[in-house]
This record gives sequence, C-alpha cells and structure tokens, in this order.
Amino acid sequence: MNRRDAMKLAAGAAIAGVSGVAAGSSTQDMDELPLCSRWDVYEISLQGPAAGNPFVDVTVAAEFIKGARTVHVDGFYDGDGNYKVRWMPDETGDWEWIVKSSAKEMDGKRGNMECTKGRWQDLELVEGQPLEPKREKNHGPVSVTERFHFRYADGTRFFPFGTTCYAWVFESERLQEATLANLAKYGFNKVRMCIMPKVFAAGEPERHPFPMVNGKLDFTRFDPEFFRHFEERVRDLSDLGIQADVILFHPYGKPWGYDQMPKDVNERYVRYVVARLASLHNVWWSLANEYDLLKTWTMEEWDHMFRVIQEADVSSHLRSVHHSGPMYDYAKPWCTHASLQVYDFDKVSEWKKAWGKPILFDEVMYEGNIWRRWGNLTGEEMTRRVWMVVSAGAYCTHGEVIAVKGSKDGVSADGGPMLGESPARIAFLRKIVEEMGEGLEAVDGAYYRSAMGGGGKAILYYFDFHRPENYPFPLPEGATYRAELIDPWAMTVTPVPGTFHGKSDITLSGRPYQAVRFMRI
Amino acid sequence: MNRRDAMKLAAGAAIAGVSGVAAGSSTQDMDELPLCSRWDVYEISLQGPAAGNPFVDVTVAAEFIKGARTVHVDGFYDGDGNYKVRWMPDETGDWEWIVKSSAKEMDGKRGNMECTKGRWQDLELVEGQPLEPKREKNHGPVSVTERFHFRYADGTRFFPFGTTCYAWVFESERLQEATLANLAKYGFNKVRMCIMPKVFAAGEPERHPFPMVNGKLDFTRFDPEFFRHFEERVRDLSDLGIQADVILFHPYGKPWGYDQMPKDVNERYVRYVVARLASLHNVWWSLANEYDLLKTWTMEEWDHMFRVIQEADVSSHLRSVHHSGPMYDYAKPWCTHASLQVYDFDKVSEWKKAWGKPILFDEVMYEGNIWRRWGNLTGEEMTRRVWMVVSAGAYCTHGEVIAVKGSKDGVSADGGPMLGESPARIAFLRKIVEEMGEGLEAVDGAYYRSAMGGGGKAILYYFDFHRPENYPFPLPEGATYRAELIDPWAMTVTPVPGTFHGKSDITLSGRPYQAVRFMRI
Repeated sequence: MNRRDAMKLAAGAAIAGVSGVAAGSSTQDMDELPLCSRWDVYEISLQGPAAGNPFVDVTVAAEFIKGARTVHVDGFYDGDGNYKVRWMPDETGDWEWIVKSSAKEMDGKRGNMECTKGRWQDLELVEGQPLEPKREKNHGPVSVTERFHFRYADGTRFFPFGTTCYAWVFESERLQEATLANLAKYGFNKVRMCIMPKVFAAGEPERHPFPMVNGKLDFTRFDPEFFRHFEERVRDLSDLGIQADVILFHPYGKPWGYDQMPKDVNERYVRYVVARLASLHNVWWSLANEYDLLKTWTMEEWDHMFRVIQEADVSSHLRSVHHSGPMYDYAKPWCTHASLQVYDFDKVSEWKKAWGKPILFDEVMYEGNIWRRWGNLTGEEMTRRVWMVVSAGAYCTHGEVIAVKGSKDGVSADGGPMLGESPARIAFLRKIVEEMGEGLEAVDGAYYRSAMGGGGKAILYYFDFHRPENYPFPLPEGATYRAELIDPWAMTVTPVPGTFHGKSDITLSGRPYQAVRFMRI
Repeated sequence: MNRRDAMKLAAGAAIAGVSGVAAGSSTQDMDELPLCSRWDVYEISLQGPAAGNPFVDVTVAAEFIKGARTVHVDGFYDGDGNYKVRWMPDETGDWEWIVKSSAKEMDGKRGNMECTKGRWQDLELVEGQPLEPKREKNHGPVSVTERFHFRYADGTRFFPFGTTCYAWVFESERLQEATLANLAKYGFNKVRMCIMPKVFAAGEPERHPFPMVNGKLDFTRFDPEFFRHFEERVRDLSDLGIQADVILFHPYGKPWGYDQMPKDVNERYVRYVVARLASLHNVWWSLANEYDLLKTWTMEEWDHMFRVIQEADVSSHLRSVHHSGPMYDYAKPWCTHASLQVYDFDKVSEWKKAWGKPILFDEVMYEGNIWRRWGNLTGEEMTRRVWMVVSAGAYCTHGEVIAVKGSKDGVSADGGPMLGESPARIAFLRKIVEEMGEGLEAVDGAYYRSAMGGGGKAILYYFDFHRPENYPFPLPEGATYRAELIDPWAMTVTPVPGTFHGKSDITLSGRPYQAVRFMRI
C-alpha cells in the first residue's frame, strides 16, 4: 500500500467513526506508516484474555515515543477479548509505540504511527476538496488562554456558549436526533451531559455504564456497548463543533445506587471513562454536577478524584466540578476553571482575582414553565442573564425545561425539542462576541456595566434594567471607534453614524435591556 | 369665655394653621383653660429682647408639669422680639407650664393647658359634625411597633409607602401646589424633604434657613420666615395624612457653604429645627441624606448629633440617617430604623437580626429617563423593587426623575409633576398591604419569596421573574384561607374559587412578576 492509499484508508476510517488508524495485533509493515491527524483518535486494538473479569484483572497501556518524549496512555477492555489503547496525538511526526500489559499475549507489542498536520489538509491532498463539508474542522482540544479565556490547540479562540442536555444519551433515538438538530440550529458550542442516568428523565435507561444483572447494577464491570454509544454521541457533537462537558458523577442516580458506589468503583469508573474518552478532542471533564448533594463523598475524595483525572488524562482536557450550594474551592490547582451555579453576576472580578481562572456560570436557572424555582425563567430573563455574565467577563450556560401539555418528552434540560425564546438570542450574542475576537474583561469601576477585549480593541456595554436616553461614553483616549446599538431581544445591530473618541455622548433608545458595542478602527 | 367657646377658639386656631392655643404673656384666667388636642401643637408666645443676636444670646424653654411628670421643652426665637415654645402634648388632662429663660421678662411666666382627647371628638361636641372633612385625622406621631413595623400613637398601624420630594419647598408656588396635588392623587404617605436647598434643583432659592447677607449666608442667625413656610408645608402634608421625613443635612449645598458650616452652627441649627418642628406630629428626623458624602463630618460627630436630637426632641420622633456608600451602624441605640440605599432585597432578614429595627429602603433608584445610573428605572422595575422590598418584610420609598423635553421643571425627585407609571401601582400595593392589616415578616427559607403577617393571618407571595404555571403553596396547617391572584402591573385582584388549607396547588397565570395573597378566614 502506498502512502496515498494509506491516507485514503485513514480518511475512510475517520468517516466510519473509528477515527485514526486501527493498529492490529500483527507486526506492521514499516514502509507503510499508519497515519493519524493531529488531535484525532489513534487507536491500538489488541486481543487478550476474555476469561474472569478483565475489567479488573488485566492491565493494558501503551507508551508512545518520539525522540526524548514518552507518553504513557492507559487502555481499556472493550469486551469479547478486545482491548484498546486510544490516544489523541498532539505533535506531528513519527511516533513509535509499545504495549505494556499484565497479559503476556499483548505485552511488548509494537508499532509506528505518523501524526500528520490535520485531517482536512491531508484529505485535500487526496481528493482536491474536503470530504464531508458539514463536519467542523478539528481545531484540537480547548484549553485556557490569557488566564480567563479559552482557545483551541490550533490557536483559534473559543467562546463558550453552552447548554445543558444532561441525560440526552438516555432519551429515545428520535429525541437524541432532535437534540442534535436543535444544537446545530441554535449554535450552542458546549453541552453538559451525564454518563450516569438521571431520575425524572427519559424513563428507565436501556443501558447503563455498568451491566444490569438481575435488576441490579454490577459495579465490578462496565458495559462497553453503553460506552460505544456514548462515544458516538460525543463524536456527533464534535462534528457540529460542540464541546462535550462530560459529567462523571451526579446525585440524581439514587434508584440505581450511583450515590452509594464503593470507593474503589468510583476510581475504577473514572479511569475507565478517561481511557475511553480522553482521546476525543472535544471532551471536558466535569467531575460532578451539584457535587455537594452527593453526601457520601468527602472533600478529600473529590480532591483525590481530580488528581486521578489529571494523571490519567495525558491530553489534559479541561477539568472542573459544579456545585449546588457551597462552592468547590476553584483555586485548587487541578481545577482549570470555575463551573458555577450562582446568580451573583457582579462578583466575577472578585472571583477572577481569587481564583485566577476562567469563570463559567454553568447554571443560571432554566428557561421554562414548571413550578420548580429553577425552572421557569422567561426567555427575556434567560437572555438577560447570559448578557449579564458575558458583560461581566465570564461565560454562561443556557438550559431549558419547557413542559408541553400532553407530551411525554422529557423537560428537564435533557435534550429533545428546544422550544424556548432565548436560544436564538444567545446565538445572536455569540456572534456579537465572536466578532469582537477578544476575551472580555469587565471594566472595573465602570459607571455602566461594560467589558473590554484586547485592551480596548472591542468594548461591550450592557444596560440591564437601565434605560438612559443618552450616555456620554468614556471611550479610551488615543483611539477611534465605530459604534453600534444592539437590541439583544430584537437581535438587531444598528450602526451609529460617525466615529468616536474620548467622551462620546450617544443617543440611545430609552428602552431597557439594550447594549452598545464599540470596535476600534 | 365658657368652655364651649374655648373649644371653638381652639378649633378656629387649628384651621388657621396656628394649631393649638396661643398662650400670651399675660397671666391666664384659670377658670377658662386654653385647650389643646392631644398630638396637636400647643404654642406659648412670649415677648423678649430683640437687640443683639437673640438666636445665640437668649435661651428660652418651658416646663410642662402634670402630677409627677415634668417635660422640659426648648423654645426658639422667631424674630422681631417674639419667642415661642411649642410642644405636642401626648397625655390628656390638665398641664401647668412655667417658662425658663435667660431673659428676665420671660423667665417665670406661667400658664395652664387642658390636653383633650382629640380634635375631631372636640369639634363634634361643638358642631355635630367634623369641620374640614378633607383633613386626615391626627393619629399622633408614628413610632416603632413589634420591632420591625410602625404604628401611630393611637394604635393605628402605619405602613410607609413614601416618595422623595427633596427640594420641593424651594420650588415655585405652582410646583409646590402640584406636588401636594400629586401626593394626594397617588396616596404616598411619607415624603423625604430637605431643609437645606440642593444644587441642580429649583434654581437659586428665594429663602434659606439662614439669612443671606451680601450674597453670603449668615450662619450666626436663622431666617424665621423660611421656617414658617417650611412648617406650613409640613402641615400641608399632615392634612393629607403624610409623614414628613425631614432631612437635616445633605451634601448638595456646597455652593452656599452648607457642607463647611462651623461645628457649633451644626448643633445650633439642629436644636433650632427641633424646637420649631418637633411639635408637628407627622415629623420624622433623617439626620442626613447620603451622610457619607459629607466629608467634613466624623462618625463621632454624627453620633453626637443623633444624641442632640434624642435629648432635644421630647416627642421622640423617629430618627435615622441615610447613606450613599458605607452604611451607618443602624444598631446604634439612637437610630429607630434603618434608612437604606441598597438593592440587596434578600438581606432584610439578616439585617433585622443584626439591628432589630424596621428597615426602610429609602432609595432604590428612581423611575426616570436621565442618563445617570440611578435615574432611569422603568415603571415596571420600580414597581418590582417596591414589591421585592415589601415581600421581604421591609418598606420602600419611591422616587421619580423624569425630564420632559422643553420644560424647565425640576426632575431630580424634588416634587412637581409626577409622570411615572409606578405611583399608581405603588398605591395599589399600599391598599393590598393595608388590607392585610399586619406587619409582614419574610418567611425564612420559603421556596418562593413570601412574607407573613400576624403569625399566618395574612400571607403575600411575590414571584419576581419566576413564572410557574402552578405552585403547591405550603399553607400553615390548622387554618383555612381564601386566595387571590394579584397582577401588580395590571392592578387586578382575582379571587381563586374555594378555600385552602395545608398544601394547596393553585393554577397561576404563567406570567412573571405576579403575586398571590392568602387571607385567613
């Protein structure tokens, strides 16, 4: 097989959802290198023991070696005697790998892999134009930049505008497809989703992360089929350019005993999940939702589990934990960002000073109509909250719980139809922010709520309940700006004629909940 | 003159605005007692020295004696050799009085006064029906009841629904009359008003509390004519049943030197004001507006001035001070209530615990249209804020700054035309609360914002931005209630059919900013 054919094979494998190259157990032909695009999944498939409980009894890992660098990646048992080691290579060039396993038939297996610059560049070489134009480009995993903001590994900025679809992988196929269609329609770019099922959502799940034996979960094993489906859904999100903020634990699984799992199972579960998912570039780790409602855990156990992820995930995906009442101490070094459930939008600057990290308001209540206090925001109020957060220099996650009379579809922010009025407005705001191109920092001591990007390149004012009929904007000296009046609800951007510098009195609409954007010329 | 004629005289004097009985310098006829209704003004008029500076040089006071009780009341110089001692008698029966003065011609003067039960009762004796039916009944001064609430001296409850007309006495006669007409129309029952003029309001004042000499205020004297007008306006408010929350100091008088007055003048001014005004039953003392912006004062001086008022005002009118930034310590014993400028409506319970006193939000920003941050609330937002405060178990003061293009009328919450949309809604809320008849206490830990009066006799829910389509209200056990849906903006009260007890699921409108009232049957 020549190199071009190998590229075609790689592309084909990617399309089939088994991205990267499946390296078998046979010795490779060193002339014809398996290929993997940078930040795609490279997967080594191995055959090993199927007897006993391989999930517990057998260890498998691989070392990837390039020059002085060695990356140790833990693999996992995928059932039926199949073992896999998955890695997301982050550096182009030729890598060697060698398998380390407690099972003799796998230990010492070797192979090679060429990590290439990126899938699209490669495919263009073969076809002259990209395959699958609907797929979003792989920009690599998201990490923190400039202390309080995010970027992809290729340097492209990432501004999180997320939503919650906690239990969507447990919904019917119809609702799962509806979820994806909605996410594509509204342009959310992050989804909070659980591995464990929730009560009050989607009914009794077809499959769990653990096998169900005689009506009880067997916590000594995992259900590979469940995880294959879960991974497929994470890849579906990737295709839409959406980050999967994967929630490892939560307190809504009591009927199945998820809140009472043995401590050793908690850790084995985390390691198994990391081994399966960490090679997917769009994964974030949310250690738990409302962690403080899991009363069987101590703070030391949460800290420990963070360190387990930190050690096991060689791709260093983003890590946080979400609270209900008392916050986790987000200053702890293994947290990459804060994942808040609070409505104190004016404390962002204080928290940035305290934690030195990006701040995500991952729950600000839900647009909805149920009687629960957290589930009946108007579209206007949800829209306002996202603007409040963004103009405070932080990021906000949307959620929806709209019950439709006569429908059995889940309403608890778990995917399915999206009926609210805020998603279109949030997409509008995402465009506003992305056009600004810079991470926004609140202007401390500003007379009206405002945030600035790039040291004054872009400035966003949000007036909340205020309705001034004019305002003498104190623009930074020594620069000239163009100005636009923004109506966050009507989703209009109206340029103000002329250019502006220094103190600039601009006539406003006199209506509340309006915004103004300044862009330096 | 027989007793009936004396009553007529007393009534006539009250009508002419010189309420109570003017006791002259001559020895009284002990057969024909001057009369004063309880909580009306009893005034002793005296002639004394006019040379030099009587405001500083001459002391005058009276002791009112009834049985074992002696009340020492300081008088004041009213110009042209006239001295007065005014008192608001609070106890029916026969009183003797004796003048104490540094001036021989006044010292030792004596007289008697009969304090009767109340003006209306007396007048009915004479006329068979009340005179001046437009005048509100004199219920006596307002004081604190049940730690966190207010009542008049006659036991009638008082629920403050105030507004701000800071500089209204400095406006044109036309605007002063418009102010009174508006207050009568909308039913505000408390007005915050300043003795000192403000910049940016009403232009250069015709008169100041101090005489203007060669373009400069003479702080060694007072202008009795100014005070006679001010008192008249306080009586106008009384006739409408409105409390005058009289602001003694503020930081908006810099052009005239009010912020730099000598320390001895500050105290002489306070004592003069108390001597003149404390006999008016509807007076409250607000030591200052935004006291912390008066940079020449130390905290010890504020404390001292509170004690001066406390000692000089024998009628013990309510006392507080209003802040801009840092709060005054309202736990201090001479403060009768808190007078806040904050928007943390959820801290009321905490503050009640800390201070043990009624809490007034005396500034929550203003309904208006100016560019200043504090002056452009919508009517909806002002209405919401008053509901937020009331449903937190506190009291809220309205204010308006609506600029009308082409009009020179003041817009800075100083009286004049009232154009906003919130006053009618606040009057509606006042009626809701007065019908409940009890001081409301927030229900701590309630799932939705609610406050309860009389240990469960009346319950008020306010849903703020929430829009549940139903809610299982957890009504107190062992009682039966009727329920009403309240739309605070549309000003409608819709009874819910049936009666309710225990957990009661009630269908709601699904709209935000709604309320529900429960009244025990």
